[in-house]
Formats: sequence, C-alpha cells, structure tokens
Amino acid sequence: MSAKDGGVEEEQQQEQEQVQEEQVVNPWEVSAKQGGKIDYDKLIDQFGCQRLDKSIVDRVHRLTSRPPHIFLRRGVFFAHRDLNEILDAYERGEKFYLYTGRGASSEALHVGHLVPFMFTKYLQDAFKVPLVIQLTDDEKCMWKNLSVEESKRLARENAKDIIACGFDISKTFIFSDFNYVGGTFYENMVRINKCVTYNKAVGIFGFTGEDHIGKISFPAVQAAPSFPSSFPHLFSGKHNLRCLIPCAIDQDPYFRMTRDVAPRIGFHKPALIESSFFPALQGETGKMSASDPNSAIYVTDSSKDIKNKINKYAFSGGQDSIENQRKYGANLEVDIPIKYLGFFLEDDAELDYIRKEYGAGRMLTGEVKMRLIELLTELVERHRRARAAVTDEMVDAFMAVRPLPNMFA
Amino acid sequence: MSAKDGGVEEEQQQEQEQVQEEQVVNPWEVSAKQGGKIDYDKLIDQFGCQRLDKSIVDRVHRLTSRPPHIFLRRGVFFAHRDLNEILDAYERGEKFYLYTGRGASSEALHVGHLVPFMFTKYLQDAFKVPLVIQLTDDEKCMWKNLSVEESKRLARENAKDIIACGFDISKTFIFSDFNYVGGTFYENMVRINKCVTYNKAVGIFGFTGEDHIGKISFPAVQAAPSFPSSFPHLFSGKHNLRCLIPCAIDQDPYFRMTRDVAPRIGFHKPALIESSFFPALQGETGKMSASDPNSAIYVTDSSKDIKNKINKYAFSGGQDSIENQRKYGANLEVDIPIKYLGFFLEDDAELDYIRKEYGAGRMLTGEVKMRLIELLTELVERHRRARAAVTDEMVDAFMAVRPLPNMFA
Repeated sequence: MSAKDGGVEEEQQQEQEQVQEEQVVNPWEVSAKQGGKIDYDKLIDQFGCQRLDKSIVDRVHRLTSRPPHIFLRRGVFFAHRDLNEILDAYERGEKFYLYTGRGASSEALHVGHLVPFMFTKYLQDAFKVPLVIQLTDDEKCMWKNLSVEESKRLARENAKDIIACGFDISKTFIFSDFNYVGGTFYENMVRINKCVTYNKAVGIFGFTGEDHIGKISFPAVQAAPSFPSSFPHLFSGKHNLRCLIPCAIDQDPYFRMTRDVAPRIGFHKPALIESSFFPALQGETGKMSASDPNSAIYVTDSSKDIKNKINKYAFSGGQDSIENQRKYGANLEVDIPIKYLGFFLEDDAELDYIRKEYGAGRMLTGEVKMRLIELLTELVERHRRARAAVTDEMVDAFMAVRPLPNMFA
Repeated sequence: MSAKDGGVEEEQQQEQEQVQEEQVVNPWEVSAKQGGKIDYDKLIDQFGCQRLDKSIVDRVHRLTSRPPHIFLRRGVFFAHRDLNEILDAYERGEKFYLYTGRGASSEALHVGHLVPFMFTKYLQDAFKVPLVIQLTDDEKCMWKNLSVEESKRLARENAKDIIACGFDISKTFIFSDFNYVGGTFYENMVRINKCVTYNKAVGIFGFTGEDHIGKISFPAVQAAPSFPSSFPHLFSGKHNLRCLIPCAIDQDPYFRMTRDVAPRIGFHKPALIESSFFPALQGETGKMSASDPNSAIYVTDSSKDIKNKINKYAFSGGQDSIENQRKYGANLEVDIPIKYLGFFLEDDAELDYIRKEYGAGRMLTGEVKMRLIELLTELVERHRRARAAVTDEMVDAFMAVRPLPNMFA
C-alpha cells in the first residue's frame, strides 16, 4: 500500500468500522452492532438506568387503580430512573408533573412517534397530573438546517397530531422553544449551563470541534423543562414539585446531564421512564427513519398505503414457502408484524394465540400481516379523524401561556 | 533538576511567561506586554479594524453640524469598522440605530465606565437615532459566579447610572438579558449559533474544554442586538436598518464574530466605533479593575476619597524632587493625571497649557493633581445628583418593552 492510498482516509475507515462494532444510541443516532439488534440490557448497564420490572408495573397498577398500559405490560417502556421515588411521593399524597417533547422535523408523524404520546396520555389520566410538552423547533432548525420559520410551522403542525392523542387541555401546556424560551426558563438554562463544562458535554453528547455552538447551547434548552420554575404560570411557589419524563431511551443523555446538575442548583432530579425504539418495517436494527418513507407507517398513509407497505416491506420471520412454514413455523424473534402487534394489539389472549399458531406454522405470514393491516388501519383512521377535528384555535389554546387552575384534580 | 520538580508545572510557567511577552486583549482580559502599555496600533493590525483618522472626525463634524465630542477629538475612540458606510448611508438620508451595553458586575461604576455612555449619548443627540442598551446580567452571572437574582439586581442598579448619563427616553430602550431574551431575539441567537463552529469560537474567544458551556452559549447573546429584528417592538419592518456599536476595543471579538455571521443570515454587518481603555490610577498597563477599589475613582467616591486617591495613587510622571521637576520637567507619556485630564478636561487651550507648563517643569505634580481633583469631583458630584434623581419608575419606563414612536425625529 502506498502512502498516497493510506494515511488519514484509512484511519477514518478503521474508526467507522470500530463504531459499527458497538451499538450507538444518542439523541441523533441509533444504530445496532453490525447486523444485530439494539441490546437493551447492555444499554441499561451503559447508561446506568434501572430495569422497569414487574414489581413496579404492579405498583403502578395498585396506586392508580387501573390496569397498567399495554406499553407497560409488554415492556415497551422497559427502563427508568427514580420512578420508585416518584411513586413513593405519590403514595404520600404528593403530586408531580409530566414532561415530554418532540423535535418536529417532518410534516407527518409515523406510528412510532405516537408511542410516547399515547403512553403519556395514559400517565396523565392515571395519575391526574399536569403535563408540559416541549416542541424543540430550535433543535430541528439547528440539526436539520431548517429555517426558523419552517421549524416553527412544523412544530405547530406536529402540535395538532399531539393534541389528537387526546390530552386534557385543563392539565396540558404545549410550547415551542422559539415561542417560549425566555424569563425563568432562560434563567434556568443559564443555571444549568454554568454546571457543565465543554469537556463534560463532549463526554455525554460526543460533540466535535466542527459542531456549531448552537448544538452545544441546546442541551440546556431540553433540560430546563425538568425544573418547575421554568413554568412560573403553572408552578409558581411549587419549587419542590417532582418531574417525571416519559421518553425513548435515546434521550437519556440529556437527562443524565440534567440529573447531574439538578441538586447543584437546588432542584429535584427528574425521574425518567424510558421506552425501547419502534422498529422499522425492514427489521429491528434501529428506529424508524423519517427520511425513508418506506421504513414506516405514517399517520397520513391511506389504508391502501398501509396494506402495500406491510405486505411489501414488513420483515417476516415466516418460512419461504407454505410447506416450510407449516413444517418449521415462523421465527418470532425477527418478525416485524409480530413486533408491531405487540405494540398495538391490546388483547393479550389474541396476541398469545397468534404467536403460538404462527410460531408453530399453523398460521401463515399473510394471515398475520392481514391482522396487522386491519389494526394499523384502524389506529391511523382513528388518529386522522381526531387530528381533523383539531382546529387552529385549539392549538392556540393548548399553547397559551396560562395557569391550569385544576391541574392536580 | 529531578523529574519531580519539573514536568507539567514548569511547562505551565513557560506558557505564562510566553503569554506575558504578548499583550492580551479580549472581553475578559486586558494586559499589556510585561512592563509596557497596550500597543493600540498593534491591536488595530491584530484585530483588523481601521484607524479613526481626522478625516472621519471632520466628516462627523460636517454631517452633524456640531463640534465632535472630546472623545473623538482626543482619540479616545480611535478605531472603527465600517463607520464610513454608516456615514455614507446617513448622508443619503438613511438612519441607523446605536447599540451599546454593560456587564453589571459591581454595585458602583468607576469613571472609566462612564466613557462609552457619555460618548453614546453624544452620538444619540448628534445623529438623532434610537439606542438599545444591553445589560448582560446573564454574562456576569456566568463569569463572576453571581446568582441570577444578584445579577439582575446589579443590572437594575447599573441601569440607574446609565440613565443618569442623560439618555433621551423617547429614543432609548434599556434591557437586561434575563428579562428580555426570548422571541425573535432568541431566534436570532439560534441563527447566529448555527454559523459558528466550536473551533471557530475557540479561535476568537480562547475557550478551553474546562470552560462551562454557558460561556460558549453567550457570544450569540451579545451578537443578537446587532440585528434589528431582535427588537420587533422597535424595528418591525426595518430589517435593513444599520447598527453602529460604540464600545471599548476589548469587545471587538464579539463583533468580529457577529460581522462574519451577518451576511450569511441576511443582515448588514454592524459598524463599530471603538475606544481605548481608561487607565488605572497606578498606570497605563490595562483597564481599571473593579476588584481593586484603589485602582479607580468610583462615581460613589466622596470628594475626600477622590482627593486621597488621586494624591496617593495616581501615577505621576513628575520628577522626585521640586528641584529636579523644575530642571527636567514631567514625563507626560506615563503621567496619569495628564491622561485623565485628556479624557475629561474639555478646554483644549487649558489642557495644552498644563501639558506645556508641566512638561517643562514650570508646573508641579501637586498642581496638576489639584486641577484633576477639582474636575473629577465636579464630574462625580454631577453624576451623583443625576443618579439620585433616577427613580424606580424611570428605570421601569426605560426598560419597558414598548415602541419608540418618534425615535428618528
């Protein structure tokens, strides 16, 4: 090999190969080890969070006097930080607030995007607590190189999808960073930023010197809603209110930083309840990608789109011929229709039945896909009807900076 | 030398010595080469700004039909960027706006702090243009490790001193970052941040990995007021309005960054008019230091304080005995009373007379100091009376987010 061919380029290639040997999970990249799936057990160890085990699910059941959400029962939300402390406080009669969010980078959400919002609505209803939803239009403006105006427009469009998930307007404040950053929210950003060195931020987020300083400024924006004083119109005088954040586990780095900072500036550490990723149609190697329309079912897809995508792209664990399927059965571990049914088919008995029959070869891929198509079409149609009913006035109402008089009732 | 004695510490010492061999001028440090004075010619070359020569002073005289301010005549404001473009536009009948600011790190201002405000008031009166004054309470909270509350309190206290300089409330908006950051101001911060890599920021500001990320987030806050859309209540629809920034030259790095970014986000580059530093009583090796009360005359000093400080600490270029002074005369180049008179003694003929007599040994240090004591006592008394008349309601009025209906009249 000549010097001309090697050197820097070769080193870069080696680095890339090294990266692919380990899974990468951070707010901007989710990729499994080459050819593999995300190893969630390893992620729990790596991040230092806790597994959400059956005893906590049972405790939630007991405390809320309602059956735990399907995403809890099925382990979609599988990890947490200090959830027991939130439940301890709740048991003592203390309330808390929920904080979740979304970076609005595309017009249409896919069904995976609905997962945290469906779950957050359940938490709001079950615990009867207020909720703040952050639309990080500033983040998308910076990472996706969208204009400020386009980012703000997308945030409003996404707000309609979020509202369509059924949140209680008397307990919910939705805000976009471009419309809300300022006041005590900005004060908290400064307090947070004072506690994090650049080196520390690099350790958490992997920034490089070629990243723009907007990226380095952003973590404080996502951290600030974890502290009640960022919302004086909601939590004035409630400095000690605890915060619970439902989110996908790729957001954990933001809140590791937040939790590290919190006691140093006089706040509770926010608690977290964290989900796995909704897999792409092509297989469970990462999150669905908004940039590949065939990797996901969108809430704007027609029933025909859904049927075509599931039949054509949903990775099957079934055998390559009817004979072999009857003989060997399907590999449920890699089968995407089975995964998707696990997210959305509420009836445990039916899901068990399908798993058993399909795994034993008595059911064919086409039949399982047909059930999934039916289920997703229903879900998407229901969402579309709900979204069509969301008016601009409702968006304004949810996003109005206002008190929520009976938010704990 | 053993390994134990040398190594890292020795290297650090060598680095420090190297630093002292060059002058350092940035927003947080002003220090001359060891034992020397700030070399302003070198600074102009190093920063790439332009010398403010007599032709520009004459042009300002002609355009404003009033004698140029003493700080212009005497070269206190000695450098600029694109001032001619502002004057070209002004001559064509276009207006502009002024932007200056202050980081409120201490209760009391010293007389050097008044320099940019006295000059800015002159510019406002002479050109009849609006003015925005930024109080960077967030900066001081982050750099001086003050609490948010204390920083905000100091900003309000300093606002009173600034208002006492006589600004026209119908043309002046004073804001503190903690009270104002948000809305289009925050949008502009994001636009700016997107254009500056961390490496670039390190090149301009000298950040290290151990600096907290608040420092890295701050330059955009100081840059944003350079763009009219950061003040929608003032400049709505005036996207093309030019901005002129009077400031001390240590602030140049912020505006080099701003000027680099401006055309990329669709704004004019702000123009600058930059002053030298007001020297410490002990000699002209840097700025006055708020941390050493004997290095400066404060606007809160009594006439007795002023007399004592000038007599005791003001570095004299006079000879060590009356006989020698009569024989050799004073070294005006290093004489602080002469420097201070150059800032504040408006009468050119009197200043010339003092310089000539003192330099020739016909005047003694004590006589020159007596004249300076008289002048500064007058200045400080006048300021104190004006400040005492500034009520909390006036501060609220100057800081109210409001339109300025006749700001160009």
